[in-house]
Amino acid sequence: MARADYPEPVSALIEELRHLPGVGPRSAERIALWILQNAKANPGKLAGALERAAREVTACGTCGFFSTAAGCPVCSDGKRDRTQLCVVEQATDVLPIERSGAFRGLYHCLGGKLSPLDNVTPDDLRIGPLLRRVEELKGVEVILAVGADVEGEATAHYLAELLHGKECGVTRLAQGLPAGGDLEHADALTLSRAFEGRR
Amino acid sequence: MARADYPEPVSALIEELRHLPGVGPRSAERIALWILQNAKANPGKLAGALERAAREVTACGTCGFFSTAAGCPVCSDGKRDRTQLCVVEQATDVLPIERSGAFRGLYHCLGGKLSPLDNVTPDDLRIGPLLRRVEELKGVEVILAVGADVEGEATAHYLAELLHGKECGVTRLAQGLPAGGDLEHADALTLSRAFEGRR
Repeated sequence: MARADYPEPVSALIEELRHLPGVGPRSAERIALWILQNAKANPGKLAGALERAAREVTACGTCGFFSTAAGCPVCSDGKRDRTQLCVVEQATDVLPIERSGAFRGLYHCLGGKLSPLDNVTPDDLRIGPLLRRVEELKGVEVILAVGADVEGEATAHYLAELLHGKECGVTRLAQGLPAGGDLEHADALTLSRAFEGRR
Repeated sequence: MARADYPEPVSALIEELRHLPGVGPRSAERIALWILQNAKANPGKLAGALERAAREVTACGTCGFFSTAAGCPVCSDGKRDRTQLCVVEQATDVLPIERSGAFRGLYHCLGGKLSPLDNVTPDDLRIGPLLRRVEELKGVEVILAVGADVEGEATAHYLAELLHGKECGVTRLAQGLPAGGDLEHADALTLSRAFEGRR
C-alpha cells in the first residue's frame, strides 16, 4: 500500500520553494505548510509581488542596476555627483555602497569579473558601454570597486590598463576590504574606510 | 540627497519574502535578488505554484488533512485500515507518521491542542466531528498521537475521558517521544517505537 503524501499542488509548491537559495527540503516544506495553514500568510500577495517584480524590473541600459519603467534610481537622480563613476561587479553590490553613505556618484555594473576558469572573458562583461560612458563623462574619476579576491584584482588590473591614457582618473578601493572577501558582504564601516583610503 | 534604493517592485518582493518562516531581512533580500538575476530562477512558476496551492488545497471535511477536489489522499484510499484512527494535533503531523511506516489506519486532525493560556478550549478543536467518526467506525481503536508536552498530555487526558464508555478502544503513543517534543520533528525510528509501545 502506498504511503499517503501531500496533494500534488502542495508538493509542487514545496518543489518550487526548494530551488530558492538557502532553502533546503525541510525549510521548503515548512514554508509551504505555513503558507497554507497560517492566517497571516497571503500567498496571493507574494505571488503578485513575484510576478510584478519579474515583469517590471529590468537592468538599467546605462549602468546595469535594477530599473523600472520609472527609470533607474541612480541614473535618473539629477543630484548625483557626475564626476565619479564607481565600477562594481554586480548590481547587488550597489546597495551596500549606498547604505555606507561613502559615495554619491554614478555606478557601472560589469555583470561579473574576469575568470578564465569559468570562461568569463572581457567580452562577457559590460566593458564597451563603460568605455563609452568614460568618454561622455569627460575627466570622470573611475573608482574600481571590484572585490579583493584574485578575479577582482585581475579585473581591476585589466580595466586600469584599458583606461590608461583616456581622459579620466582611475582609482581602486583601498585594501581595507577583508582579503578574499565579497563586496556584497562587507559592512558599512569597512566600505567607508575602503572609499577614504582609495589610491 | 536621498540614498538610492531598490526600485519599488524589488522592495515589495523583499517585504513579502520576509514574512515567510525562517526568512530574515538578509535572506529575503538574497532570495529576491537571486530570483531577479539568476537564469535558473522561474518567478512565474513559483507564483503559479503559490496561487494554485492556495486555490486548490483545502482541509478534508472528514479528517482535516490537506485535500483537493480529487479528494483527501488518506480518506479516499480504500486500502487504509479502518479499525484504527490516529488523532493528531495538526495536519502537518500526518506526513511524519506516514513516512515512519508505523501506521496504516485513518487520521483525525484536531486543529490544535488544549491550552487555557492561549484561550484554546475544546470548542476550538474538531472534537464533535471526532465523536461522530468514532460512532460511525464502530469498535475502532483511537490512538491518541498528540505531543508529549503539557498541553498534549492535557488534550490526551481530556479525549480519553470523553471517549470512555464509547464503543471504541483508546490508546496513547508510548512515551518514546522525547519529553516536551513536537510530533512534527520526531524521527521515523522514534515514531515507530512509540507506535509499537502504545498502551
